[in-house]
Amino acid sequence: MERTKPESFLDRTLVRVHRAWRNIVSTTPALGDGGTFAPDLPDHQLPALDARLHDCLYGAGGDYAARARTAELGRTYLRLSATGRSKFLTVLAESLQPDPETVAQEIEHWRRADDSTDRLSVEASLRDALTAPRVRLLKQFNALPEGVKFLVDMREDLLACKNETAHLAALDDDLKDLLVSWFDLGFLQFQQITWESPAALLEKLIAYEAVHEIRSWRDLRNRLESDRRCFALFHPSMSAEPLAFVEVALTKGLAGRVQDLLDIGAPTADPDQTDTAIFYSISNTQKGLRGVSFGEHLIKKVVESLSLQLPQIQHFATLSPVPGFRRWVDEQIEAEALALSDQDSMALERLRSADWTEDPAPDAPMQDLVHRLAAAYFSQRRGDGQPIDAVARFHLRNGARLERLNWPGDSSDSGVKQAYGLMVNYRYDLKHLEANHEAYVQYGTVAAARTIRDLMKRVQKDGQQ
Amino acid sequence: MERTKPESFLDRTLVRVHRAWRNIVSTTPALGDGGTFAPDLPDHQLPALDARLHDCLYGAGGDYAARARTAELGRTYLRLSATGRSKFLTVLAESLQPDPETVAQEIEHWRRADDSTDRLSVEASLRDALTAPRVRLLKQFNALPEGVKFLVDMREDLLACKNETAHLAALDDDLKDLLVSWFDLGFLQFQQITWESPAALLEKLIAYEAVHEIRSWRDLRNRLESDRRCFALFHPSMSAEPLAFVEVALTKGLAGRVQDLLDIGAPTADPDQTDTAIFYSISNTQKGLRGVSFGEHLIKKVVESLSLQLPQIQHFATLSPVPGFRRWVDEQIEAEALALSDQDSMALERLRSADWTEDPAPDAPMQDLVHRLAAAYFSQRRGDGQPIDAVARFHLRNGARLERLNWPGDSSDSGVKQAYGLMVNYRYDLKHLEANHEAYVQYGTVAAARTIRDLMKRVQKDGQQ
Amino acid sequence: MERTKPESFLDRTLVRVHRAWRNIVSTTPALGDGGTFAPDLPDHQLPALDARLHDCLYGAGGDYAARARTAELGRTYLRLSATGRSKFLTVLAESLQPDPETVAQEIEHWRRADDSTDRLSVEASLRDALTAPRVRLLKQFNALPEGVKFLVDMREDLLACKNETAHLAALDDDLKDLLVSWFDLGFLQFQQITWESPAALLEKLIAYEAVHEIRSWRDLRNRLESDRRCFALFHPSMSAEPLAFVEVALTKGLAGRVQDLLDIGAPTADPDQTDTAIFYSISNTQKGLRGVSFGEHLIKKVVESLSLQLPQIQHFATLSPVPGFRRWVDEQIEAEALALSDQDSMALERLRSADWTEDPAPDAPMQDLVHRLAAAYFSQRRGDGQPIDAVARFHLRNGARLERLNWPGDSSDSGVKQAYGLMVNYRYDLKHLEANHEAYVQYGTVAAARTIRDLMKRVQKDGQQ
Amino acid sequence: MERTKPESFLDRTLVRVHRAWRNIVSTTPALGDGGTFAPDLPDHQLPALDARLHDCLYGAGGDYAARARTAELGRTYLRLSATGRSKFLTVLAESLQPDPETVAQEIEHWRRADDSTDRLSVEASLRDALTAPRVRLLKQFNALPEGVKFLVDMREDLLACKNETAHLAALDDDLKDLLVSWFDLGFLQFQQITWESPAALLEKLIAYEAVHEIRSWRDLRNRLESDRRCFALFHPSMSAEPLAFVEVALTKGLAGRVQDLLDIGAPTADPDQTDTAIFYSISNTQKGLRGVSFGEHLIKKVVESLSLQLPQIQHFATLSPVPGFRRWVDEQIEAEALALSDQDSMALERLRSADWTEDPAPDAPMQDLVHRLAAAYFSQRRGDGQPIDAVARFHLRNGARLERLNWPGDSSDSGVKQAYGLMVNYRYDLKHLEANHEAYVQYGTVAAARTIRDLMKRVQKDGQQ
Repeated sequence: MERTKPESFLDRTLVRVHRAWRNIVSTTPALGDGGTFAPDLPDHQLPALDARLHDCLYGAGGDYAARARTAELGRTYLRLSATGRSKFLTVLAESLQPDPETVAQEIEHWRRADDSTDRLSVEASLRDALTAPRVRLLKQFNALPEGVKFLVDMREDLLACKNETAHLAALDDDLKDLLVSWFDLGFLQFQQITWESPAALLEKLIAYEAVHEIRSWRDLRNRLESDRRCFALFHPSMSAEPLAFVEVALTKGLAGRVQDLLDIGAPTADPDQTDTAIFYSISNTQKGLRGVSFGEHLIKKVVESLSLQLPQIQHFATLSPVPGFRRWVDEQIEAEALALSDQDSMALERLRSADWTEDPAPDAPMQDLVHRLAAAYFSQRRGDGQPIDAVARFHLRNGARLERLNWPGDSSDSGVKQAYGLMVNYRYDLKHLEANHEAYVQYGTVAAARTIRDLMKRVQKDGQQ
Repeated sequence: MERTKPESFLDRTLVRVHRAWRNIVSTTPALGDGGTFAPDLPDHQLPALDARLHDCLYGAGGDYAARARTAELGRTYLRLSATGRSKFLTVLAESLQPDPETVAQEIEHWRRADDSTDRLSVEASLRDALTAPRVRLLKQFNALPEGVKFLVDMREDLLACKNETAHLAALDDDLKDLLVSWFDLGFLQFQQITWESPAALLEKLIAYEAVHEIRSWRDLRNRLESDRRCFALFHPSMSAEPLAFVEVALTKGLAGRVQDLLDIGAPTADPDQTDTAIFYSISNTQKGLRGVSFGEHLIKKVVESLSLQLPQIQHFATLSPVPGFRRWVDEQIEAEALALSDQDSMALERLRSADWTEDPAPDAPMQDLVHRLAAAYFSQRRGDGQPIDAVARFHLRNGARLERLNWPGDSSDSGVKQAYGLMVNYRYDLKHLEANHEAYVQYGTVAAARTIRDLMKRVQKDGQQ
Repeated sequence: MERTKPESFLDRTLVRVHRAWRNIVSTTPALGDGGTFAPDLPDHQLPALDARLHDCLYGAGGDYAARARTAELGRTYLRLSATGRSKFLTVLAESLQPDPETVAQEIEHWRRADDSTDRLSVEASLRDALTAPRVRLLKQFNALPEGVKFLVDMREDLLACKNETAHLAALDDDLKDLLVSWFDLGFLQFQQITWESPAALLEKLIAYEAVHEIRSWRDLRNRLESDRRCFALFHPSMSAEPLAFVEVALTKGLAGRVQDLLDIGAPTADPDQTDTAIFYSISNTQKGLRGVSFGEHLIKKVVESLSLQLPQIQHFATLSPVPGFRRWVDEQIEAEALALSDQDSMALERLRSADWTEDPAPDAPMQDLVHRLAAAYFSQRRGDGQPIDAVARFHLRNGARLERLNWPGDSSDSGVKQAYGLMVNYRYDLKHLEANHEAYVQYGTVAAARTIRDLMKRVQKDGQQ
Repeated sequence: MERTKPESFLDRTLVRVHRAWRNIVSTTPALGDGGTFAPDLPDHQLPALDARLHDCLYGAGGDYAARARTAELGRTYLRLSATGRSKFLTVLAESLQPDPETVAQEIEHWRRADDSTDRLSVEASLRDALTAPRVRLLKQFNALPEGVKFLVDMREDLLACKNETAHLAALDDDLKDLLVSWFDLGFLQFQQITWESPAALLEKLIAYEAVHEIRSWRDLRNRLESDRRCFALFHPSMSAEPLAFVEVALTKGLAGRVQDLLDIGAPTADPDQTDTAIFYSISNTQKGLRGVSFGEHLIKKVVESLSLQLPQIQHFATLSPVPGFRRWVDEQIEAEALALSDQDSMALERLRSADWTEDPAPDAPMQDLVHRLAAAYFSQRRGDGQPIDAVARFHLRNGARLERLNWPGDSSDSGVKQAYGLMVNYRYDLKHLEANHEAYVQYGTVAAARTIRDLMKRVQKDGQQ
């Protein structure tokens, strides 16, 4: 009845086997300086690196050997400094490009192709010619034990330097395309995270939480109590890393103040007495997956899953920050663009002094002012016709509607600094998601609750006067 | 202490939730005939199908809705007849092609691009323009619960008709590229299969075994005894389906007769007394993955894994069929190309009569003849310089060497029909795999044991006289 | 992404460690004949065995060593023949008994104990004195890797010889008490068995099925289809062995013919269209657990579990054999105790000829006769007031009621041989289980459906005339 | 690809089913005060409780119902206050005792029994008569979802009051016997605990650590680094609770200072460079299992397991506290029983001032003094001939030997308070465990390294002068 896995022993044996194998495999590129690349990749080593890259693709020994060699090169990459990595990426970007002559040739073929059948086949050849050989190399890094994570992290490095040269940008295109394909939503595993989850995983929630900092293990535990839920998406080849996670509070009615949710001392609600699921924090974790989006998928999976688990839950909504609000307000003030009554001016002064944050009772004139400013803020559009608030753009595109303005919603330092304490709820109503999405995408319509719509209209009218 | 998973209940509830969701989602393409496609897809329904395909890509509601709609379409596909599927694939191939005008435009841009930076970005645009929109659609089928298996099976359908039109061939290119990327070796899970494995999985071994038919569950059990091993590769999204599997017998010395290995009544060897692992059956299971190869990877993983598990195992070799041997011999006889002694002629006659199969004692003249014929056979090359035997090509490319000729090796009907009972061993020796592979790929050298090499030389010399 | 567990390697290493340990441990009892016991345990070895038994309890080295030594002795036992085991058990039974003097002493103390406090403590001492030291030894066999299974199998051996001597009977009492305690229902794991279960487990269903033989893997698979359920109880230390299992068919209405359920060719029902769960086979598997009953617990767990999984299931009933029916009928005929009309006589003759089994249409006079005989049969009581049918006793004690008589219910050879083809349904209705049980236990009342009750009354009245 | 288990939903449904069942089941004992017991169990409710207890054993409805009723009663117990529980236990102890008349009768039978066969059967009856019916009731509590934990916790309550009456002591005997049987070492699962273990489990290590307090999650994580190991024993029915756990450090040579091991900032050692496993903390967790010992088993399992995992580890030793050392020294001083040189006196003064704890360099005279005092301390015996140090008794009985005295070994407050900073190593050498154990058990011999033995002799001789 032994449940122990003597992993370290096995692991080490495995390493030994792999090493034996590799001794055979990587007889290839001799490197001047004692066989290893220096962390900063001095320029005189670049030709050797270039040779190694080619060797991974075109070297001796068959596919299995090529992949083993690429994995070895991956280990080399991991030992490089930031400078070294940037150089490595540059060599990689420039070394294994599409062959210009083949491209030119295929384009010539295309121009001469007579009928559509010809053209189809020429187009395929042309597309192949335009696909850089480095794409195949990138895939071969998947032979590393944590190959997918390796590529995600390599992309993080690449994002830091991709604007330096057009080649790096092109490499980033290739790598992003690959990651988009490999992180297809159909592959992702949707999983609930609880206090029963491995500590090594929970530790990552603490590290990755991007909205409301998790200050301690006790804070974390509070977010996994019986009136809370936490869900994450995983990739099967990266099971130790959540890609994105969402924290949910089960409440009676809409929650408006995030401090209430984060209060470790607050009593735990009986889930059977709740009717609303509040998504109060959504975090993406992998910088290297920028542009590969999981948020919409995650939220809608959670709505589905909670509908199943907890039939008593009728409402799904976020409690969201308004990250650009304060800056916008300050700009309006700066530009003297606000028409303020005397009472408004006093309220504004007090709002900016931040002395209200300790005050338990909300101040009506301040609240009234903030709500009107918020209505104006959410009516603002960027050049492309979309709202200026990034969080709003995300939820509105998903088909949610702006449900309620909450002031004071976040009286923490960061809440005040970002948005003078304003938070809002976006509501996810399965019955209206598609219509809202369509109206938003086609006409830029901001779906909002009636009271907010009225306020927006009033504010716009006032603004026009 | 309840270990039951009330799956059917949950499953059905899930279906209900999905249905609710889908009611909202798929308000889209109305179909004349009562809303469903007929199994044979009559021509008048094709425009509706075309509309549905476009709708999956460009319809209302956002990504989540688009994927749900594509999944729905996938279910439609599964209900079609062979005829219907062929039509469906044709519409899919012709409907969502690259836009010719954009392609022409981008080619024009390319020709005008001045410097390399420009060219890089134009090449990316051109490549995108050449990528058919149907590729995105194919990926969206991954939203189906068994989406990856769906695409593999769709490719099986497609392989049956891809030669009919250039568009279908182009669709096959797209689908194959996608599958190659998604079935990257780095994603595959290597797993031992034992008598403790689920019956539902073992049942598939019986169905998929391609070399030596598994005749009953008792036969299967015999192949999973303590002196046997079975390993398979799996894709994380297709965990119920082995992609390829290999059956291994642990023996003392090389095994030469497959009937000895398949004998249900034979006593089970003590693994500790063995020194050789014989790979006596390797099967690929998914027709839809033609051209995506797992065999080399699987064999080398097994060699690694067994090296770890069973340090006493020193030798790794196959016991392989020689599928083209009889046809070649018969052609030689037909063409009177063989210089045979009288003894040879008598042996040949007896060999062809097949009355020897019941004879326990091997007949020396017959064995001698077969071995010489085999040496000649393995010396033959195709136009591309490779051996004419398909199984030989596979193992030699992997770096194995032809180790021993075994006659009689397979006295079953199929063994006689294929190869007059001949079988051979290919040996996988880690220390020589790469050199063998290189010599084979570059010079067409057939690695072989000394006795076989000598025999081949002698036979070639005789042939030249 | 290696999922293989190199078990054999580890196992062998473990064995090596254990061996090393044991070398140290079992320096103890020297055995004349080369150190090992002969399979038949010749009499001259019995003193050595006796010494070994004592050594396991009172030998040197502490608990850990004692358990290791007992495990070693257990391995010895497993190598003995049936004769050897019987001798072993006899020595075990006679060797490590309660000490008569201590017992006598404690009884004397008890008689002298003045007050109740004294008496309490003396009673505890007396109980300890009456507990044979071999009980502790039995527990120490649990140090074997499959210790619990070892004891269950040892009990099976013991049941075969326990009536030979009073000491063996006493040993059986001790062992049974131990097994009753260790197989407490609270420890048992209730688990659904499906076609996804390990083949090694399913194979055991085939071996252990006691009611309707499973003739092939295809037959087994049919019993695990989507309109079937199979549940079993397991002990955590014997996870490879189901203790008892039940096979359930989901049907529309009560099923009356077992051949319909066992027909491999019959179409699979849609579970959503069913309303009844028919328990058509219940098997206990471990002979060594005779007297430790799981049946009631298993059935009631299944009723609970199916109520959860399949809310549409309204009725729970068995389709049960009537094992003593034919013998009873034959005895009545023999004794000329039946008052039969002419039609009855003809029907009886035909019934006994068994030529009706192929006849698809039920014969009304025969059916009518069998039902009346059945009513009379179920009205019969043994000396203790309980029904003479063993299966009836089990279900009635559980609180089920006799719901329907089915003729022909089982037209197989064994069905005809046991019960002239009669089968019956017992219904488990949660609302009445307790009342039925009480009435049965206190007054011997046989709970039955109205039509059966009426028939029983009529038959009894007829009998009285 | 959904990995979520919607447990809460299922759990709640289960509860609903159980409730339905229970409504039927527990129609039984009506309770005056609104049907529930008050937390403090006022005396007028005791008769109702007594009725309930009898009802659980002898009430209507069969075993399944009886167990359900007992589980219900268990829930009642959990809602009681400490006072209420003590009363409950008293009623339980006094209510379901052996029947005095039956006992008297059986004793009379015993006296009259003529031959040994008779006597065997009478002894069995007598033993049964002496077994209190409450034992069966205790087992029925196992029907609770966490039944085993319930009984362990009930024993914790019982230990607090068992000395109050002879009946409570007898109940404790019964409960302890049951737990000893159910926690047989053969059932326990030995498991490694890592940073991958569930947070809910790791949290319990923090709570239960009894030797060197775990001050934070960071401290815990340090104890699970790659140069550390942690192992625990679990019962299959209490998988959320470790029964005992041990913390191990892998070191190069014996470790003598516990602060070095607990230092969060210390670098992590490379396990491949270590040769010694130091057991620096062993904790039992369940107060209710007092007298059921796991320590020896756990330590020896760990030695076995590490021998397998880490063949480079040659030495196994503890770093143990000496809990009674300071008190003993202080008593010697008080009694002026020490013959101290001047240097000794100064060293002793400094030792007692505790000003040395911050001093990195060990003070030779102090160390010399402490070692001599330690030698004298370990030479002391209790009335039963065993050493006066409890930790020494445990390890010596296991067959370990006293390997090294370490001063300063623990300079924490508690280390100084307990033992003036002294710690010792006990070494577990597989080759000598049994001999050491025997010498200890039979002759009270304290196995010790030569230097310690010499010191002990010298000290004893000095003492005699």
